[in-house]
Amino acid sequence: MNKNSSNIMALAPNTSNKRETICIFGTGDFGRALGHKMIQSGYPVVFGSRSTQKSSLIPKDAEVLSHAEAAQKAAIIIIAIQRQHYNFLTSLAEILHGKVLVDVSNNLKINQYPESNAEYLAQLVPGAKVVKAFNTVSAWALQSGTLDASRQVFVCGDDMEAKQRVMDIVRALGLTPLDQGSLLAAQEIENYPLQLFPMWKFPILLSLCLTAFFFFYCLIRDVIYSYVYDNKDFSFFIAISIPNRICPILALILLALVYLPGVLAAIIQLYRGTKYRRFPDWLDKWMLCRKQLGLVALAFASLHVLYTLVIPIRFFVRWRMNSQIISQALNNKTEPLNNTYAWLSDSYLALGILGFFLFVLLGITSLPSVSNNVNWREFRFVQSKLGYLTLILCTAHTLVYGGNRFLSPSSYRWYLPNAYMVSLIVPCIVLVVKFVLIFPCLDKPLTRIRQGWERNPQYSEQSNYIINKSAV
Amino acid sequence: MNKNSSNIMALAPNTSNKRETICIFGTGDFGRALGHKMIQSGYPVVFGSRSTQKSSLIPKDAEVLSHAEAAQKAAIIIIAIQRQHYNFLTSLAEILHGKVLVDVSNNLKINQYPESNAEYLAQLVPGAKVVKAFNTVSAWALQSGTLDASRQVFVCGDDMEAKQRVMDIVRALGLTPLDQGSLLAAQEIENYPLQLFPMWKFPILLSLCLTAFFFFYCLIRDVIYSYVYDNKDFSFFIAISIPNRICPILALILLALVYLPGVLAAIIQLYRGTKYRRFPDWLDKWMLCRKQLGLVALAFASLHVLYTLVIPIRFFVRWRMNSQIISQALNNKTEPLNNTYAWLSDSYLALGILGFFLFVLLGITSLPSVSNNVNWREFRFVQSKLGYLTLILCTAHTLVYGGNRFLSPSSYRWYLPNAYMVSLIVPCIVLVVKFVLIFPCLDKPLTRIRQGWERNPQYSEQSNYIINKSAV
Amino acid sequence: MNKNSSNIMALAPNTSNKRETICIFGTGDFGRALGHKMIQSGYPVVFGSRSTQKSSLIPKDAEVLSHAEAAQKAAIIIIAIQRQHYNFLTSLAEILHGKVLVDVSNNLKINQYPESNAEYLAQLVPGAKVVKAFNTVSAWALQSGTLDASRQVFVCGDDMEAKQRVMDIVRALGLTPLDQGSLLAAQEIENYPLQLFPMWKFPILLSLCLTAFFFFYCLIRDVIYSYVYDNKDFSFFIAISIPNRICPILALILLALVYLPGVLAAIIQLYRGTKYRRFPDWLDKWMLCRKQLGLVALAFASLHVLYTLVIPIRFFVRWRMNSQIISQALNNKTEPLNNTYAWLSDSYLALGILGFFLFVLLGITSLPSVSNNVNWREFRFVQSKLGYLTLILCTAHTLVYGGNRFLSPSSYRWYLPNAYMVSLIVPCIVLVVKFVLIFPCLDKPLTRIRQGWERNPQYSEQSNYIINKSAV
Repeated sequence: MNKNSSNIMALAPNTSNKRETICIFGTGDFGRALGHKMIQSGYPVVFGSRSTQKSSLIPKDAEVLSHAEAAQKAAIIIIAIQRQHYNFLTSLAEILHGKVLVDVSNNLKINQYPESNAEYLAQLVPGAKVVKAFNTVSAWALQSGTLDASRQVFVCGDDMEAKQRVMDIVRALGLTPLDQGSLLAAQEIENYPLQLFPMWKFPILLSLCLTAFFFFYCLIRDVIYSYVYDNKDFSFFIAISIPNRICPILALILLALVYLPGVLAAIIQLYRGTKYRRFPDWLDKWMLCRKQLGLVALAFASLHVLYTLVIPIRFFVRWRMNSQIISQALNNKTEPLNNTYAWLSDSYLALGILGFFLFVLLGITSLPSVSNNVNWREFRFVQSKLGYLTLILCTAHTLVYGGNRFLSPSSYRWYLPNAYMVSLIVPCIVLVVKFVLIFPCLDKPLTRIRQGWERNPQYSEQSNYIINKSAV
Repeated sequence: MNKNSSNIMALAPNTSNKRETICIFGTGDFGRALGHKMIQSGYPVVFGSRSTQKSSLIPKDAEVLSHAEAAQKAAIIIIAIQRQHYNFLTSLAEILHGKVLVDVSNNLKINQYPESNAEYLAQLVPGAKVVKAFNTVSAWALQSGTLDASRQVFVCGDDMEAKQRVMDIVRALGLTPLDQGSLLAAQEIENYPLQLFPMWKFPILLSLCLTAFFFFYCLIRDVIYSYVYDNKDFSFFIAISIPNRICPILALILLALVYLPGVLAAIIQLYRGTKYRRFPDWLDKWMLCRKQLGLVALAFASLHVLYTLVIPIRFFVRWRMNSQIISQALNNKTEPLNNTYAWLSDSYLALGILGFFLFVLLGITSLPSVSNNVNWREFRFVQSKLGYLTLILCTAHTLVYGGNRFLSPSSYRWYLPNAYMVSLIVPCIVLVVKFVLIFPCLDKPLTRIRQGWERNPQYSEQSNYIINKSAV
Repeated sequence: MNKNSSNIMALAPNTSNKRETICIFGTGDFGRALGHKMIQSGYPVVFGSRSTQKSSLIPKDAEVLSHAEAAQKAAIIIIAIQRQHYNFLTSLAEILHGKVLVDVSNNLKINQYPESNAEYLAQLVPGAKVVKAFNTVSAWALQSGTLDASRQVFVCGDDMEAKQRVMDIVRALGLTPLDQGSLLAAQEIENYPLQLFPMWKFPILLSLCLTAFFFFYCLIRDVIYSYVYDNKDFSFFIAISIPNRICPILALILLALVYLPGVLAAIIQLYRGTKYRRFPDWLDKWMLCRKQLGLVALAFASLHVLYTLVIPIRFFVRWRMNSQIISQALNNKTEPLNNTYAWLSDSYLALGILGFFLFVLLGITSLPSVSNNVNWREFRFVQSKLGYLTLILCTAHTLVYGGNRFLSPSSYRWYLPNAYMVSLIVPCIVLVVKFVLIFPCLDKPLTRIRQGWERNPQYSEQSNYIINKSAV
């Protein structure tokens, strides 16, 4: 059911008395929040606590009993205690036998313990059916009812029936259960809420460094140079002109960096003559964050488009144009249309528009719901064929923009070439190498290698060893 | 499987004779449509009807028998009858014992009956296994084969195996079954197809009212004032100029209204000293439609961007610019570059671009498939940190746009300030209060309250009572 | 779990020794790739092969035995052999009895064999539990770890428990299993990876033909005509001016073609007086690709927006404007504001902006994750009401753009009207017919027909026959 209707259900709780009793061990914030929510959804709730004295914070409809008494009242027991205190549960092993124990705990660090909390719990109480659930939901979100991101509850467990019962409770609370398989998945589920965009760190760091570098590069060339030589104050270039130089440069470089590892991988495979040796670690990691690199590149490209489109409404641009026209009018001269300039201007704009259009298409295809609806063949077609076409169009856009300025000495200030010339290095390398790799003399052996052929089978025995060692 | 391939399957039906016989009670439009579809997918279909005389509308391959005879021929019986006529089923209780009854009914109003139709059916025929399904699919869509939105079929039921069998039939018809848990979910599933954007009503109504208000405000200031005092006809401002004033104003106000309830909630919690008391109802509802408010604000911001970017190609703007240049040329005067104006113009444009860029990012993150792929920590980071940054950038954009016109008397026509000044009130309040709440003397107690601490625990006993009462 | 975390898991393999042994029949590329991945995920792997001599390509940790020996070591056997070689499995029937056989095979053509490979396997070894899985994953993707599109693994099978076990293995490998029901779904699953955008072929082909036609049309009118009569070289119009004529024309025509089949279907139903007769095949296929037609139209509309917004920064446009201003300044003349032109210019821009805005909204609603979250009523509202509003706005945009040029003889060059006039034919027909269909005298019978009423019931007996025959 969609979010909206679930929200409505949360406001108009179902109070059917068919629900089975749930026991919650622990009266901390999360235990209480879960208890509140369950009572709202019509479940009778019993808290198990060391002190059976009822705190004022505990929902009034809930009973508070000793752990043993509470456990006897319910078939499903939610363990809302921290892992360090789990060991007292061994003393209750007899009562907990056959019951469903729901581990809701989280850790403070990724991979804090050798085994997951849920697996540890299953070892402590071998007779119980342990299910991992609810750890991705926050107590605050449960209480405030504003469950936007955290509506998904990952559930895993070895006992199918126990898992189904917990998933039904999750649904009754207005949340979406996602079956993650056996208890082996618990480690991953416990790590999940601790992450903060792990795959985005490298692309964002890289683009920040490049942005800083090109900012100072352009500042020196465009602002400081003008100030030193012409004594003109163009400091306001910092607002739009310089960002509009940096954005396309970063978009182009990052887009090229998306396709560079694929080219490197092909070279490595051709050199080694096998696909059965693992790539160096840095290349593996690079390949895994290509999607994120591409999306950061798309962000820069979008900013470039916006910055470019506001050009005609900038005060400075209007002033410069007015001055030109007035001086021309005063000098009584009209220029004929320069056809070459018209061609250059129109074609670099057209190349940019088409490149950006394909880039946005690539971005839309990388949306999870879209990429889930295409098969491997279609995905390869879009990401590889359309991706290279985008890179070619964007590189051509930059080359035509440069036009005949590449060799003109006036483009060099303090021996620094225009920033866009620097940005062309990586994409040109990628495109040239890719072009070379298309030649049959290289493409044929590469295809065979990727289908499992080896140039030197003797060698691969060792390589398998390398792969397997990394798996230990 | 994706939609495309399912469509293909629908055109090239599988006629395997392995399928089990399905019985359909009722020969109305929906029953017949479902029967057609099932026959196309290879199921033998038997209709149960009061009159066994075969109507010409019933698929030719289907048998029509009395209810009792038809029920005996199949293990799965689809009840395509209206709820009012269910009671005759009690007479068939013996034959229906152990069979799977699929309730496909819908009501005319939300929560029309105290219990859902499926639960009512389960009470009438206690020996049968009732499954709710197919109610979200329309007969017309089934028949025409154009199932775009309604490919999802919500299924719920208390008997796991019966539910699995119905889900397999759903899949065989080329639809996507979604397990919604036990029969308790039936009420929600029955309400679902009756909704029409329930969460969007308030945001859209609010924005329509604000649009009307600001439209007349701008009409008076920009068109009528000019007409009365300067006798100039600027009525064509209605097409672009006035919408381009209204859109940014509404975007800014609605964006601020997304963050206002969070600030109010913090104040209420600080004042009460506890998080265990429920917020007033209006605040609760407001918090639940923040996402929709934000998306409406984004829509207005996007329109503002489009309206702004077409400025240079408007006839009026070109005419005004030409006149200015020509009059300057005729007066033989050239103005030097005003550096302050260049700075103001470029920085308000840059702030607007960055604000809009972050706004679009927020919008993309609220797509279901994207927000399902981020955890609670990441979602909070995007929606809270990036959200406030967007609000700051957009407010700054408006402030810099105003520049030094705030105090100039020429900005006031008939004592009415420029509309954008009015729009700054709400965002400035939100930002100032949020800024105050960041101070440690307020932030620390707030954080403790949100972790479950109470300033005055005695008080909360009653508050729990309030929460629980609302759950009864 | 989201992709990111799964990627991490793939890099830090879980080496728990709890995993059960998996047997793989066949030591080809896919078998080896799957074996590698399974060993990395902690599964002991045994290969079954004709020659038990261990090839160097096989993972070192894996055993290689004869088929019979290998099968005895595991309860789950992956059949990584081509369908042609399946028949040797009959000789192992006794050993394979009760085991889970996983069919991972693919074919070379869609519907190559009358029954799916998995069903064929089930017939060969009746005692085994056959599950179809893994065929949508490529060996190369498994090995390189770059599983972006192919993370989804479709699983189907008749034995619930066997399917669950295979789905758990799929999850353990970091992939997402999707239950597709019984083994009847295997055919569709096997066809899936062979498709390449089947629903997009017609819309893309159609738009390519129309693009070519309108390109030459505009080339003749705008470039060749000028060259012949005025001897002016406007060849650079090919870059932006002509694309910016073609894009809006195609967007409008394709958008109208989205709504044309609905109108045709209504006329056919009114004429036949029943909804129970199948539409002609071409209409059925047309209706099924309306979404794709609409998205292609949206792509052209977006390009049109980009091409239009860069107009003011084109060299040619600036040059033309400068020349005009200078000639006006030299002639010492200033024109007064032409209010009609201002109205026309602003209103066609405003209509275009609103039309494009609604168009983008329609596009967003067709994203799978968004359309899954709306019900049938909401989807109809958006796609039908908003869709027609979009068509009306876009048609009005084109009409106002034309203004009073429709009858002016200067718009006709070589008797060819302006291209946009040609593009108005289809949308105007659709809108007029739709408008006629809204009249009660036509709307009422149509509504009754769609609710199942028939004008001439006798007739429908035959029509049912037609439907059913097509299902045989």
